[in-house]
Amino acid sequence: MSGFGPDHLPYGVFSTPGAPPRVGVRLGDGVLDLAFETGRDCFAAPSLNPFLALGPAVWAEVRDEVSALVRDDDFELLPLASATLHLPFEVADYVDFYCSEHHAAGVGRLYRPDAEPLLPNWRHLPVGYHGRAGSVVASGTPVVRPRGQRVLPGDDAPSYGPSRRLDLEAELGFVVGAPSAPGTTVAPDALADHVFGVVGLNDWSARDVQSWEYRPLGPFLGKSFATTVSTWVTPLSALDAAWTPLPGQAPAPLPHLAHTGGAEAAVGLDVTVEVEVDGEVVSRPPYATTYWSPGQMLAHLTSNGAALRTGDLFASGTISGPAPDQVGSLLELTADGTRPRSASGGDRTWLEDGEVVVLRYSALSTTGGRLTLGEVAGRIESARTHT
Amino acid sequence: MSGFGPDHLPYGVFSTPGAPPRVGVRLGDGVLDLAFETGRDCFAAPSLNPFLALGPAVWAEVRDEVSALVRDDDFELLPLASATLHLPFEVADYVDFYCSEHHAAGVGRLYRPDAEPLLPNWRHLPVGYHGRAGSVVASGTPVVRPRGQRVLPGDDAPSYGPSRRLDLEAELGFVVGAPSAPGTTVAPDALADHVFGVVGLNDWSARDVQSWEYRPLGPFLGKSFATTVSTWVTPLSALDAAWTPLPGQAPAPLPHLAHTGGAEAAVGLDVTVEVEVDGEVVSRPPYATTYWSPGQMLAHLTSNGAALRTGDLFASGTISGPAPDQVGSLLELTADGTRPRSASGGDRTWLEDGEVVVLRYSALSTTGGRLTLGEVAGRIESARTHT
Repeated sequence: MSGFGPDHLPYGVFSTPGAPPRVGVRLGDGVLDLAFETGRDCFAAPSLNPFLALGPAVWAEVRDEVSALVRDDDFELLPLASATLHLPFEVADYVDFYCSEHHAAGVGRLYRPDAEPLLPNWRHLPVGYHGRAGSVVASGTPVVRPRGQRVLPGDDAPSYGPSRRLDLEAELGFVVGAPSAPGTTVAPDALADHVFGVVGLNDWSARDVQSWEYRPLGPFLGKSFATTVSTWVTPLSALDAAWTPLPGQAPAPLPHLAHTGGAEAAVGLDVTVEVEVDGEVVSRPPYATTYWSPGQMLAHLTSNGAALRTGDLFASGTISGPAPDQVGSLLELTADGTRPRSASGGDRTWLEDGEVVVLRYSALSTTGGRLTLGEVAGRIESARTHT
Repeated sequence: MSGFGPDHLPYGVFSTPGAPPRVGVRLGDGVLDLAFETGRDCFAAPSLNPFLALGPAVWAEVRDEVSALVRDDDFELLPLASATLHLPFEVADYVDFYCSEHHAAGVGRLYRPDAEPLLPNWRHLPVGYHGRAGSVVASGTPVVRPRGQRVLPGDDAPSYGPSRRLDLEAELGFVVGAPSAPGTTVAPDALADHVFGVVGLNDWSARDVQSWEYRPLGPFLGKSFATTVSTWVTPLSALDAAWTPLPGQAPAPLPHLAHTGGAEAAVGLDVTVEVEVDGEVVSRPPYATTYWSPGQMLAHLTSNGAALRTGDLFASGTISGPAPDQVGSLLELTADGTRPRSASGGDRTWLEDGEVVVLRYSALSTTGGRLTLGEVAGRIESARTHT
């Protein structure tokens, strides 16, 4: 079953000919129809949101129930090949962070070669911003090369046209199930009280558009054309064996951002990522090397009292490890387009029309094997012709 | 009827004791129950979204129908005093722009006194970013002073605590009704094909939190604790007489951002705003002085192919006119907290606990009188005690 065994059981939304989208659990190359198998109404829905809203106790109950069905061989399995997969949840707000020190410093060295690679705030808080929830799409959705305003090399003024510096960003996304009340905060150790599970995530980026637009209010159209997530959501409960201490944090985080036990207690997920472009693996970013933890992202996001809603999605930011073949963007891999992205890829740097990007994720299972998280795939289509 | 006559007819969501929230139209000091008056199902909903999704032809049809009911005195009017008003629409994505040249330049002069007040991109595109849709609340909702990470005067390192530089931002918000398809763009002249109407909007801002967090990805927690909108949505069709040429744009906008007729043809709304803090009017920002038009914001937002969804909200950014008593934020009014906000307000600068902020909006009506747009009110409550 190669990563989709009884120790995994990720959730998704699927449809079959003549039947509407509904919630299922993946097992091997098949899917269990959860409304049918459990009789619960929350699964007869085109998104996971009604189930997500029920909270951790129900999530655990259902996982036990499905595990028992699988153990007792008491279920029908629909072949995956007969199913169409959909965006698994309705996105409420989407926040993207910038939690990888290797990424942030790498970008800093490229853009500000004579200055400190990290800005003064970076080690004090997980920098983040809101993205466009309505542009989040399911793995497999084609990505149309965006047009945008950018200053072409040699030009003084901007022009409007297809992005020439189209990039990927390999990230891990976190799906909020249980809401929080406005005016309350969530502690870093309380991640599992609110977060249901994780998705693979590609935060496609038009670097030329982004670099022109982003001052002073941050990325906007350079990101908002598409963000792709996996069609399968791996519940946190399947990742119990994947938690790992993070590399360490100095200065120690302020109390509201500290895990119980302090700076040394920050824990992240040992999820490995494989970035494939046009059939070639070009990089292997390790999420375990990130600086800020998932719990710290959530604590920061709510530290001003902002409420969580069912369907909120927050993402790690580009995952880059310390080695050159562990970076999560072409920006870093090509040194801002100045060198080829791989030894065998000719002189190709940024993404080209027709290329397919696939992000693959895996993590240690509680059984000692590996889980294969939902992959994130997208093919670049040429820009549309409009004014 | 002081601004809420038959020439206005704004839409909102209200409830009465024992009956659920539903859509109504305001007339004078009363409200028409639209589900009851028109028999249309789309109004028996707790948000305007089902109606908004029906598009401009239905919006016009309903306005004609309601106008006829009012003309023929064929309706029941529920007293406003007996109704509770709610957030009028479910916000999909929220985008905040930065369209006022006087505001952007004013902020630039405060923060970068020795440099050009406007950044290089500012006159080429309407700078914008995504805000938190889940934090948009209805007028009257108390605003709890947010906590956040900020560097206090004299400190080297940040600390976490209540914002000491809490500000308002007087803006106008635009409510998208009719969606657009992913990969398509919307021309500046096509605003009314998608935008249903306008709301008053206060983009509350914690300046100390914002100034520490915003590099390089823009505002996040300094804004995401609350954004208040009016409970009444004024349909664009009530604002036919309020369109006015904007001051002018140089350089000429690129073709995809140009209104038919070029740089001189950019049209905005002559909406006047009154900013009242603690019972005193401290400023009167004129929206007619803005640089980028509503249509240009929409065109820019979709210029990368990002889809519009029913319930999308985009806002002007702080509205400031050229005169010192026309600025739309305390940041400008107090020169970043260095002078009192008004002659009679003692030494008060930023917002204090217990103070009430009210934004009032008005515009020319097609009948020659003035429309009173929905006001935006909020009282500052002291920070909650949590870690």
